[in-house]
Amino acid sequence: MHTFQELLEQFERHFGGCTFPDHPATLYGPAQYILDLGGKRIRPVLCLMGMELFGELDEDAFEVAVAVELFHNFTLLHDDIMDKAPLRRGKPTVHTRYNEPAALLAGDTMLIYAYEHINSIRSPQLQRILSVFNKTAIEVCEGQQLDMDYEQLHPQEVEMEQYLTMIRLKTSVLLAASLQMGSILGGGSEGNLHHLYEFGKNLGIAFQIQDDLLDAYGDPEKFGKQPGGDILANKKTFLLVKAFALADAAQREQLSALLQRRDGDKVAAVLRLFSACRVDEWARQEKEKYACEARRHLEEIAVLSSRKKPLEALTDRLLNRES
Amino acid sequence: MHTFQELLEQFERHFGGCTFPDHPATLYGPAQYILDLGGKRIRPVLCLMGMELFGELDEDAFEVAVAVELFHNFTLLHDDIMDKAPLRRGKPTVHTRYNEPAALLAGDTMLIYAYEHINSIRSPQLQRILSVFNKTAIEVCEGQQLDMDYEQLHPQEVEMEQYLTMIRLKTSVLLAASLQMGSILGGGSEGNLHHLYEFGKNLGIAFQIQDDLLDAYGDPEKFGKQPGGDILANKKTFLLVKAFALADAAQREQLSALLQRRDGDKVAAVLRLFSACRVDEWARQEKEKYACEARRHLEEIAVLSSRKKPLEALTDRLLNRES
Repeated sequence: MHTFQELLEQFERHFGGCTFPDHPATLYGPAQYILDLGGKRIRPVLCLMGMELFGELDEDAFEVAVAVELFHNFTLLHDDIMDKAPLRRGKPTVHTRYNEPAALLAGDTMLIYAYEHINSIRSPQLQRILSVFNKTAIEVCEGQQLDMDYEQLHPQEVEMEQYLTMIRLKTSVLLAASLQMGSILGGGSEGNLHHLYEFGKNLGIAFQIQDDLLDAYGDPEKFGKQPGGDILANKKTFLLVKAFALADAAQREQLSALLQRRDGDKVAAVLRLFSACRVDEWARQEKEKYACEARRHLEEIAVLSSRKKPLEALTDRLLNRES
Repeated sequence: MHTFQELLEQFERHFGGCTFPDHPATLYGPAQYILDLGGKRIRPVLCLMGMELFGELDEDAFEVAVAVELFHNFTLLHDDIMDKAPLRRGKPTVHTRYNEPAALLAGDTMLIYAYEHINSIRSPQLQRILSVFNKTAIEVCEGQQLDMDYEQLHPQEVEMEQYLTMIRLKTSVLLAASLQMGSILGGGSEGNLHHLYEFGKNLGIAFQIQDDLLDAYGDPEKFGKQPGGDILANKKTFLLVKAFALADAAQREQLSALLQRRDGDKVAAVLRLFSACRVDEWARQEKEKYACEARRHLEEIAVLSSRKKPLEALTDRLLNRES
């Protein structure tokens, strides 16, 4: 068994060895570019941790982990085109650095390579792994579409339950599936797989709430950038959607008016309203609720508790992070 | 064993039963829209024919055929975005009818559904089928990228060999792979699979040359539209690329000048030049050469010759078509 950091290093070594062909450079250059932007690699490490919960790491686990990371980057690449995002991790997005057609096609190719990595496993569980992968990939696409649909709406028009479904599809299910695919390889039982999936799903939602809280209330020095980006961009977050539900009529009107503004005082004014309707308090409680539910499912998994240590440590780390 | 028409009808019945979920309609509407535009369904029927060459049709063959047709439509959808094409089969393209983000995501989803159909087969050959599918899918993406790269070049700068590679990747390999995946399901031997693949690859190139000839020389009444569309749009075709290779210096200059024009006389003037450098004659010979090579490989397949009748009939039909 290994810590997050150890698994991360092992994964990076494998991932660094998976290079695209040289030709056509106009296709594979853009694909390599987004991979080289880096990332936290949480999903592939979750896949490795899922396997280590029940068995020993093998080549199959790394192949599926690579597939998960390729898939994740494929979604980032295509989402950036759809959202017309200029920057990703502080660098120009693929379609900005190259062009939209090349970015689109590079994304397609990465998705197919993800499948090819899965298809290279020796485990007799290929069909089962692919079922989880396909179901999840479709859910992630559905989540992205719901996200775009909700972008067209005033935050007041989005119900918290709808918003939660969108976040679950867009973010949580891939974390849950990464764990589950690893644990299928490791030979986990149906019951254990269920609890591990639910652990991942709840962790994902808690993680996203933490993300929203950080963007609003993060310490600029630790966060690495000025907080308030989501607020300035009127991004629909747990905080903004719930604020409209908690606010009284006058506060709702003020908040709607603030959405029209783009000046430097907007962030502070929105945060004052968030405090007034106690949405920050609500978000912290919700995060705890999902974190608690995640930990409950982790406890339910019937393996020696020592095997769960890396997942417990990762949970603490993800939910107490300041950047 | 069945004729093309019989297999087409069986396929359409299966395909019509494969519907997407209702929700989110903003995602699945665009996906259903392109499928409803129809098509010749050559690839899925080739898959069924590949199976019938060696065995009896079963549910697996239809699942792989559906996957092939979904994949083909995914490529059309994304290609239309990349090419900014306004029309497909005389109707607005998906990104024109809806919007680019919805079209992009609908394409992604169709690709994933293609994989899910393959993953539903009961054959123990899943991994082998997926290998062929992935290899082909990657080649089709590479072909599309090369096509876009060559679009940026003057036709004189594109070597015939490069152009042929692009066509092989973009068009032929999917026809060949469709046949091959069917024949893997049918239990064909390695040697037979090889010849079937080569049959499909050569047929694909002959088919594309026929396409180019039809667009230039087709009978407007039978062709269903005015010929010369490729010429007007300066589309790189076998004819245009080869014309620059066959032409003398003066003809090359004339042809280059013609590329700048967009008037109604352009088509006739280009066709006169094509005749003068005998590129039409060359193309008909090339088509025959590839057709001959295709038929040779079909002959080499070691099954009762009566089983090959549907593929022979299809070859004749595809290469002697007038629309």
